[in-house]
Amino acid sequence: MTDLGPNAPLIGVPGSRARLDTPALVLDLDLMERNIATMAAHARAVGAALRPHAKTHKSIRIAELQVAAGALGVCCATMGEAEIMVRARVPGVHITSPQVTPSKLARLIALNADNHRGFSVVVDNPRNLAEIESAARAVGKPLDVLVDFYANHGRTGAATEADAVALAQAVAQSGILRFRGIQAYAGNLQHVAVRAERRARTLEMLTRVAGIVERLESTGIKVPVVTGAGTGTFDLDPEAHVFTELQVGSYVFMDVDYNRALKEGRNELPFETSLFVQTAVVSTNAPGWVTCDAGLKSFATEGPKPEIALGAPAGSTYTWFGDEHGKLILPEGAPRPEIGHKIECVTPHDDPTVNLHDFYHVVRGDTLVDIWPVDARGKR
Amino acid sequence: MTDLGPNAPLIGVPGSRARLDTPALVLDLDLMERNIATMAAHARAVGAALRPHAKTHKSIRIAELQVAAGALGVCCATMGEAEIMVRARVPGVHITSPQVTPSKLARLIALNADNHRGFSVVVDNPRNLAEIESAARAVGKPLDVLVDFYANHGRTGAATEADAVALAQAVAQSGILRFRGIQAYAGNLQHVAVRAERRARTLEMLTRVAGIVERLESTGIKVPVVTGAGTGTFDLDPEAHVFTELQVGSYVFMDVDYNRALKEGRNELPFETSLFVQTAVVSTNAPGWVTCDAGLKSFATEGPKPEIALGAPAGSTYTWFGDEHGKLILPEGAPRPEIGHKIECVTPHDDPTVNLHDFYHVVRGDTLVDIWPVDARGKR
Repeated sequence: MTDLGPNAPLIGVPGSRARLDTPALVLDLDLMERNIATMAAHARAVGAALRPHAKTHKSIRIAELQVAAGALGVCCATMGEAEIMVRARVPGVHITSPQVTPSKLARLIALNADNHRGFSVVVDNPRNLAEIESAARAVGKPLDVLVDFYANHGRTGAATEADAVALAQAVAQSGILRFRGIQAYAGNLQHVAVRAERRARTLEMLTRVAGIVERLESTGIKVPVVTGAGTGTFDLDPEAHVFTELQVGSYVFMDVDYNRALKEGRNELPFETSLFVQTAVVSTNAPGWVTCDAGLKSFATEGPKPEIALGAPAGSTYTWFGDEHGKLILPEGAPRPEIGHKIECVTPHDDPTVNLHDFYHVVRGDTLVDIWPVDARGKR
Repeated sequence: MTDLGPNAPLIGVPGSRARLDTPALVLDLDLMERNIATMAAHARAVGAALRPHAKTHKSIRIAELQVAAGALGVCCATMGEAEIMVRARVPGVHITSPQVTPSKLARLIALNADNHRGFSVVVDNPRNLAEIESAARAVGKPLDVLVDFYANHGRTGAATEADAVALAQAVAQSGILRFRGIQAYAGNLQHVAVRAERRARTLEMLTRVAGIVERLESTGIKVPVVTGAGTGTFDLDPEAHVFTELQVGSYVFMDVDYNRALKEGRNELPFETSLFVQTAVVSTNAPGWVTCDAGLKSFATEGPKPEIALGAPAGSTYTWFGDEHGKLILPEGAPRPEIGHKIECVTPHDDPTVNLHDFYHVVRGDTLVDIWPVDARGKR
């Protein structure tokens, strides 16, 4: 049996959510299931397919729930994530980042050979494309390829429409690679604060993508897939009817940043926070604050601070206080929690926070009902 | 055999450092061995013992190298780290953070029962002390306890000298707990910018600790151990002859923050950077920068940005560019690296960066000579 950590004996024990060994990543299954169902209904309503991003959760179990709700498969950001998903027989695995080194190409070809349930990768560079083609030819198994388009983000992707078209034509002419379509993930647009601006920039980007599709189809190259969009733009992209599928990720959990957009009326996401970090008070000798056991090894630190979801006096705030400790700052006059007292925080940024944890402590209400490993944690 | 990741076939292959599957944590063994020897010589010269902090490296192999160089044992910040070290038969494991929940107390007592090579824990709270005493009494095995003193840091520790003395007296009077001494770790002083101020504040704190020791010894309570200090103050504490042992951690690797102190003349640490993150260029279509495969899942993000150690044009800088990507910003007119090109970065903050990686890729010069798991990564 896999080691499920110190909380394994609590599975199924009524009230066990409050008794977890901490720090612990807590997943509220009722809320996550609702988020998955809501996104699935949205996709059906707008006629888009779903290929949710597994980089958010890195979990075979959650990928399976998404597929059971109608997703075609999952996206992965790294080769290591894709290996975990393909080997767990999750269908329709698509790798959203270019894979360029000899080591990654060898893993790509091996994984494609293993896979019989749909598998694809992006390219954004002619030399990389030639190397992938030659590696695929050496083993003789066709490989599905999408062309990654820049989408104003500047992280990966062909920089111009002409470059994207040329790459697509080169794939289409290959005897061993199969051209599957265009990826245009505008990560930078997910958090544009004003909805009207986010909408305008998204539609502008989609117009450029539509132009690429038109040019390809006018020369007889079919573009079955156009993939992109995230939780911040999931309801904007379908307006333009360009995306055939959505790569949404964070909607399963939500986080502090997406919640702020909701609170401030910048977005109207119909999703609820389902993911928390539970931490215990471990020291109470300082004036004005107590020290908890979740610090910068339990929370992503590049974005906002964690927000307190339950267990602390109203008006308290949380910040990290070293690698293993957090500082729960109490409002004046608030009662001081005792050592051992538990609080739960909303994760500041869901993907990299999950990446710091080995397990999801899956709860329904106040009871731990299961423990799921973060299967692809740290996999490159 | 343990899975050592995709780089296992490269062990012993000449020149393999340049061929690692990326992102990869790279440990230069020659340099780390020199750091370990330098600190060991310093400790011998000043007559202090060493109990280096394993929270930095989380590695059984590195702990063993430190012990082989004369360390009494290692410090651990979490119960999970201590479990890894004790079960690997590393001697002299000391837990530097209070352990307060029922779950952590059960693990503490179980680990003490397992251990025959020296084991201790801190307390900073009378209720916690009473609970540990009662748990230890229930199994009948003595447990070594140190009293944690606040040391102006405010994270953990008794807040006043009187509180520390009272806790020490309570331990000393217990039939089952054994009073071993005082811990005073001033984490906040490690990075005080001006050496003269760091020195003054360190000595002031040590005077308070010396007062506690004096009060205890005057009432017949022996204080065999006074433990504390870090890489930023390792050469200040011995002046006062208060610490009997040093809890230094970062000296094995160094990082951007400690290196800045060196460069700016704020400190004269005789240690060299031995730890790097190797990353590959994966996309080259943007103006002014290229995209690499190490982002905020490969680097600690709460402190400075990574610094480039090798492989990039002079004047380049590195920043994260999403979860899995980094942005190598090139100076004007610099040649643009091609896809697959490798660079190595100094880690921004060593402890939490190591915590993001599964393996040390151990090199001598340009050859991968071994792969060591980060044994206690993520262990709480």
